[in-house]
Amino acid sequence: MTEDIRIIEVKQSVFADNDADAEELRRQLQEEGTVLLNMMASPGAGKTTLLKKLAKEFEGVLRFAVMEADIDSDVDARAMREAGVDSIQIHTGGMCHLDADMTRQGLKELNSAAYDLVILENVGNLVCPAEFDTGAAANITVLSVPEGDDKPLKYPLMYETCQLLVVNKTDVLPYFDFDCEKLCEYAKRRNPEIEILFASAKTGEGIPEIAEWIRNRFF
Amino acid sequence: MTEDIRIIEVKQSVFADNDADAEELRRQLQEEGTVLLNMMASPGAGKTTLLKKLAKEFEGVLRFAVMEADIDSDVDARAMREAGVDSIQIHTGGMCHLDADMTRQGLKELNSAAYDLVILENVGNLVCPAEFDTGAAANITVLSVPEGDDKPLKYPLMYETCQLLVVNKTDVLPYFDFDCEKLCEYAKRRNPEIEILFASAKTGEGIPEIAEWIRNRFF
Repeated sequence: MTEDIRIIEVKQSVFADNDADAEELRRQLQEEGTVLLNMMASPGAGKTTLLKKLAKEFEGVLRFAVMEADIDSDVDARAMREAGVDSIQIHTGGMCHLDADMTRQGLKELNSAAYDLVILENVGNLVCPAEFDTGAAANITVLSVPEGDDKPLKYPLMYETCQLLVVNKTDVLPYFDFDCEKLCEYAKRRNPEIEILFASAKTGEGIPEIAEWIRNRFF
Repeated sequence: MTEDIRIIEVKQSVFADNDADAEELRRQLQEEGTVLLNMMASPGAGKTTLLKKLAKEFEGVLRFAVMEADIDSDVDARAMREAGVDSIQIHTGGMCHLDADMTRQGLKELNSAAYDLVILENVGNLVCPAEFDTGAAANITVLSVPEGDDKPLKYPLMYETCQLLVVNKTDVLPYFDFDCEKLCEYAKRRNPEIEILFASAKTGEGIPEIAEWIRNRFF
């Protein structure tokens, strides 16, 4: 019934200057009229469920697709397909992040020009993806409540390079020692400009506000 | 009251062949009579709390110390110090993993010969740390329930290189869709030899079994 999951094995970039290449990709996407956002988080922070819920918010409003980057498996692209979301699975060949050229390979396979908004779900990792500009218009990081409120202290670059922090899994706040005020203080210490939204992808709480943030900023 | 946290900024390795260097470190540690274990996990999986609880199990039995590797902050070493556990904080200078030489620098600063057992808490990351042999006698990976049961599908190398998988935060199993049987099946698919123990560092459940696994295997 469902067509096969599209999996693309991207090759490591040949570009020495990823920053310049990312600028070039950003310019191309602007010309094409496609907004690309780069979503980063730890493994298991709930990015995929969040994207499934966001897709519902964009139905009939924006042509939306997702690029799922993983080292292996097609678990995430399959979840997207089951939710009726256009998606592609990118395999990084063991690489811990995507750079601009790997992102470009994925966009080409996806046919990004057919979409208003593409969100790249980067490899689950709080370190390396933050070091590589993918050419996205903005970076979003997701932190889930069970991970703890101290993550901005330990992974500074992730917070410095993101415009939006989504605190996910707020439905389990009662079961964890997680101090929302402390989290905000630590995140703002790393990046005073970062905006912070709270959500539960499981219950749907806070999802419309994330969609609104994206629409207000880019459409 | 407490002495200052010892923080060491390790330098990137000059050794081209990390595997050979790791073998050399393993030989040195064997001579010295110190068992080094390398604990790896996603950010927020609960490694630090687990190590604090394990330390209690080793009190009066083994001379035990911890090396906390992070990109920034001294949150973990401070937690160890407050729990009365000998520890050192290693800053990786932005690096996403430790190699054998960085581990050696930490062991020297810690004065590892004074301990029977040293556990290295590697940088929170399911990708890169698995690629670098630290010279440890064994690798342990921790997966927390909120991260989901599909992680072995997405991060194959982590499971292939570990001898023990600790499934942590079992106290929140009722609040998450986490299938323990599936998790075991996926982990064994990556590594048929991997041993799996379930624990809650918060409640203490399963901690004696982890200590026993370590004692039986190395002492």
